[in-house]
Amino acid sequence: MDKLQVTIMPEGLSVEVEKGSTLLDAANAAGITLKSSCGGQGTCGRCAVKVLEGTVNGGDGNMSKAKRAEGYILACTAKVEDGPVTVEFPESSRLSEHQVLLDDSLDEIIKESQVDDFEHSDEAFVKKVQVTMSEPNLMENVDDLSRLSAELKGILGTENITISYNALKTLPAKVREGNWQVTVTCLITDESAEVIRVEPGYVDTPPYGIALDIGTTTVVAALVDLATGKKLRQAGTFNRQAGMGDDVISRIVYTEEEKDGLKEIQDVVIETINDLLEELYAKENIGAEDVSAMMVAANTTMIHLFLGVEPMYIRREPYIPGVCDAPIIKAKELGLHIHEDGSVICFPSVASYVGGDIVSGALLTGIEKQDEFWLFLDIGTNGEMVLGNSDLLMCCACSAGPAFEGGGIAFGMRAMDGAIEKIVIDDEFNVSYATVGNAAPVGICGSGLIDCLSTLRTAGVINRQGKMQDISSDRMREGDEGPEFVLVYADETGIGKDIVITEADIENLIRAKAAVFAGIRIMLSKMELPLEAVSKILIGGGFGNYLNLNDSIRIGLLPDLPAELYSFIGNSSLKGAYMALLSRSVFKHSVELGQSMTYLELSDGNEFYDEYVQAMFLPHTDMSLFPSLED
Amino acid sequence: MDKLQVTIMPEGLSVEVEKGSTLLDAANAAGITLKSSCGGQGTCGRCAVKVLEGTVNGGDGNMSKAKRAEGYILACTAKVEDGPVTVEFPESSRLSEHQVLLDDSLDEIIKESQVDDFEHSDEAFVKKVQVTMSEPNLMENVDDLSRLSAELKGILGTENITISYNALKTLPAKVREGNWQVTVTCLITDESAEVIRVEPGYVDTPPYGIALDIGTTTVVAALVDLATGKKLRQAGTFNRQAGMGDDVISRIVYTEEEKDGLKEIQDVVIETINDLLEELYAKENIGAEDVSAMMVAANTTMIHLFLGVEPMYIRREPYIPGVCDAPIIKAKELGLHIHEDGSVICFPSVASYVGGDIVSGALLTGIEKQDEFWLFLDIGTNGEMVLGNSDLLMCCACSAGPAFEGGGIAFGMRAMDGAIEKIVIDDEFNVSYATVGNAAPVGICGSGLIDCLSTLRTAGVINRQGKMQDISSDRMREGDEGPEFVLVYADETGIGKDIVITEADIENLIRAKAAVFAGIRIMLSKMELPLEAVSKILIGGGFGNYLNLNDSIRIGLLPDLPAELYSFIGNSSLKGAYMALLSRSVFKHSVELGQSMTYLELSDGNEFYDEYVQAMFLPHTDMSLFPSLED
Repeated sequence: MDKLQVTIMPEGLSVEVEKGSTLLDAANAAGITLKSSCGGQGTCGRCAVKVLEGTVNGGDGNMSKAKRAEGYILACTAKVEDGPVTVEFPESSRLSEHQVLLDDSLDEIIKESQVDDFEHSDEAFVKKVQVTMSEPNLMENVDDLSRLSAELKGILGTENITISYNALKTLPAKVREGNWQVTVTCLITDESAEVIRVEPGYVDTPPYGIALDIGTTTVVAALVDLATGKKLRQAGTFNRQAGMGDDVISRIVYTEEEKDGLKEIQDVVIETINDLLEELYAKENIGAEDVSAMMVAANTTMIHLFLGVEPMYIRREPYIPGVCDAPIIKAKELGLHIHEDGSVICFPSVASYVGGDIVSGALLTGIEKQDEFWLFLDIGTNGEMVLGNSDLLMCCACSAGPAFEGGGIAFGMRAMDGAIEKIVIDDEFNVSYATVGNAAPVGICGSGLIDCLSTLRTAGVINRQGKMQDISSDRMREGDEGPEFVLVYADETGIGKDIVITEADIENLIRAKAAVFAGIRIMLSKMELPLEAVSKILIGGGFGNYLNLNDSIRIGLLPDLPAELYSFIGNSSLKGAYMALLSRSVFKHSVELGQSMTYLELSDGNEFYDEYVQAMFLPHTDMSLFPSLED
Repeated sequence: MDKLQVTIMPEGLSVEVEKGSTLLDAANAAGITLKSSCGGQGTCGRCAVKVLEGTVNGGDGNMSKAKRAEGYILACTAKVEDGPVTVEFPESSRLSEHQVLLDDSLDEIIKESQVDDFEHSDEAFVKKVQVTMSEPNLMENVDDLSRLSAELKGILGTENITISYNALKTLPAKVREGNWQVTVTCLITDESAEVIRVEPGYVDTPPYGIALDIGTTTVVAALVDLATGKKLRQAGTFNRQAGMGDDVISRIVYTEEEKDGLKEIQDVVIETINDLLEELYAKENIGAEDVSAMMVAANTTMIHLFLGVEPMYIRREPYIPGVCDAPIIKAKELGLHIHEDGSVICFPSVASYVGGDIVSGALLTGIEKQDEFWLFLDIGTNGEMVLGNSDLLMCCACSAGPAFEGGGIAFGMRAMDGAIEKIVIDDEFNVSYATVGNAAPVGICGSGLIDCLSTLRTAGVINRQGKMQDISSDRMREGDEGPEFVLVYADETGIGKDIVITEADIENLIRAKAAVFAGIRIMLSKMELPLEAVSKILIGGGFGNYLNLNDSIRIGLLPDLPAELYSFIGNSSLKGAYMALLSRSVFKHSVELGQSMTYLELSDGNEFYDEYVQAMFLPHTDMSLFPSLED
């Protein structure tokens, strides 16, 4: 096969790709993640790059005339066929790291979750014990494993002691090196204890574990001391699968359309996770072999892609996952950088679009212990929700789309430095703004978009349908893709061009909020509950922390209930995983919790669509649903 | 590292080896197994080879003057350092295949073993079941794994269904390919059933299993239809570890003295086994993925080397194995060519020198169910025995050494074509002989050696101490290594030289038989039993089948009891493994059987040595022990 060289600027990195590869392939080969919301279909226009030397074929697709005039082409449709090329991958087309929220302490989480008698020491997935074995002699010549097992039975109170193949191989050397004293790491289940590591002598370091939240957009890992339950450190990063599509559907499409696509997309998330782990280990000065368990919370598609389980039937009616309750898998089977025989435990999913992240979040809320009705909302790339109490739990998912995370929005971005998070519009349509880190503005983050929508409506820039109005301001103009409103002029930005919000952006945002609100309405209707019956609304998801409640109600994303009923609970998926990592009984409870949820399939029938269409106004066609906005 | 070419004749095979490698290394690199009883120490003299072109350094060690005069050197001490060489590896220095006994049918084995109610179908390690799943719809949208598990729970009557990681990955595709009908292979334990394979549609092929006997000298595998219990085919070959030492001690020494020796010696036996498996699969037209379980019977050292478990403490006082009762290991961890998630189950060992092969053999004998005392003897490279009844079982091992398998004997060989198996000596010391396959004689096999010893003694060629006598025959002469007696002159042989038996050979044989007989005496003494209390003697081991009972008693190998008390049971290790492969309850029984045996350590105290010295005569110093020989 012919190989051609692609040199990537400004780094000057050179990679060799097969003739006919796209520039997106070249980026992946170089370890650079380009934005690619559509998964390389040429429709999102986010992977714009410039050819500096040489020629490429193709490069067409959805892009503004202006950008095309500047010489940009799309990396995903541009093929290297005629010889070596040099290309520029601008910052604006790349995914970059961002800061992930630090979470609360275990005590706070436990308090929040209302878990009774949280006793992780008795119920751990992993125990590390110091063992003194009797020294053998000619009369007492039992084999090493039997000697060890006999002691462990006493210490652990388990009859059934097994040992991993790898631990067995060096057992004789280890017990003698420690002069018949060893420190043994065991994986504990109801049925047995499996020795996976034998260290000579008495070793004081605790067993470690990882709580992991694999989001469609971000991945967050927490390193936990399993002996004390303390969270030592947390790290987060973008899910590099973003280069293969912004949402779960486009990722599934990627696995179907690319050769070895499933393997490739699995490898990418495993690499993302391993890099996070190495970062945590380096900072805490521990090794991968010290970590014996990983508790994973993620949506159903993310779990399929993480495990490499065929995901294609998730997106096809009747939307059937391959697996909801995955078996415990050894880390080496997945290539994860924890102890090779360490357990990888996945939170059970409820259905194709309500995953283990929601079960984990629900566990954190304690919703299943309430007499009154609570509503738990996780607003991310997918919007999932659980409504219920100790008698009944119902859940559903509405595909909000990536708009709230900046996807499908001309200047959308994640909450990084320079992201506009708030705007104010005066009577003359002058705009002032605040950005993350007070940096020169470069785009608009999710909370900024909600604020924008609310402010534009209040200022009369858009009407209740979200259409741009004929206002007397230069900021209102006709752009490449229809009407747009200038938020910041080029000279004030960090990117040298005007930052605008387009009518198309507004429409995407309205669709997203309408989907969430319609989901809430349908659930209330199915359970024959008035909105007032809901005594608490818990908002989870990384995005939830930045949400402005007034703006969210004003645009009709959240129901019009008093502020004191709302509670923002941060990364509920990770927090739940942290708790379950520490206790088998809590994990078991979460499995039951998942099983107790009734899944409501919104695509079944017209009810959801009807509600959705009614919610496509700001805040809603039925203003009586928003009494606080009447005045 | 410099590489040098070694060309091996007569094949003309060329291999590249690192400068400084031995010719034995070159042989291993070329996949040719040279005889190497001493494990490459230069002491056994069996790896004699000739350099045809080029020069090597070294090559010294134990070898006859005659052989040296013919230009032979030892491959194990000859190093390639000065450039490419061409060498001849003569047939006489190579291990080659031999025919392994075909065993009895399952019915005969079961009858022999006296196992009650042998019902393998209910107690199998593997079940293959046809499952019809209900097709999902929007209302009934449970995930694929749960749908499958629900059906399996009903069919198998097990609550706890798990699935291997590899089976999980393609489950969604497989169930749809089969249109919701699949054939599922499950590993069954008391606690759970693990799905390891899902085939679309209804597949009629049975689950297969392998019963394996890993002997120090030979490896035998039987392919079994686990549904019917029928043995389909059996194949045997030399254990290629023979190139790393003839007995268990020299193999352990090899792992200690060679870099990565344990890994290397493990790889060699795994290769030996895999080649046997491929032979079986090719002849039965099945694939490795069709075989889901392997039951392994082997001595303790062989199990350690098979599993790669550190064996060095087996040979050091107080002789402690790393493991007696190994956990079930997945085939992929060992690189065995059965289904990657198939179970590898090892018979439990009793102690360092009484292994799972003896437990397996004892299982076959049914010794543990007897009211009267039985004696089970397994005579191979090691001599192990079990004495007892339903109340008490005692076992021991006496290191007989490899003489009965032809090791350490000038013209010793395995029972292949041309092996002398019987001789007759007339009054004038003329010798007539019979060979395996009536081929021109090339050496003497184990049963031939026993016959030889007996006949030489009867003819007066040797005295009761085994010393050559001053007889009037040209056949008696002084050889390179002392007195020797010519069995066949060169012109009648297939090797172009005289086949002799030396005084040193006789001494080795007497040592071997003395060790076995002393072991029997000690066990009787410890249990305070007269010999007459033994109502049955069962002789196992591949060698056992060829043993001439009269000769064996005449030389004092076996006790002087009536022929009708003796029973030859063939490869008892393999037969026991075959039975246990078919039934978890039979395997469990064998574990208990192993645990019920009291191990007698012969090296503890002087008793064994005293008995051994007394047995160093033909048949014994105490002739009253052999009343039938008095006349």
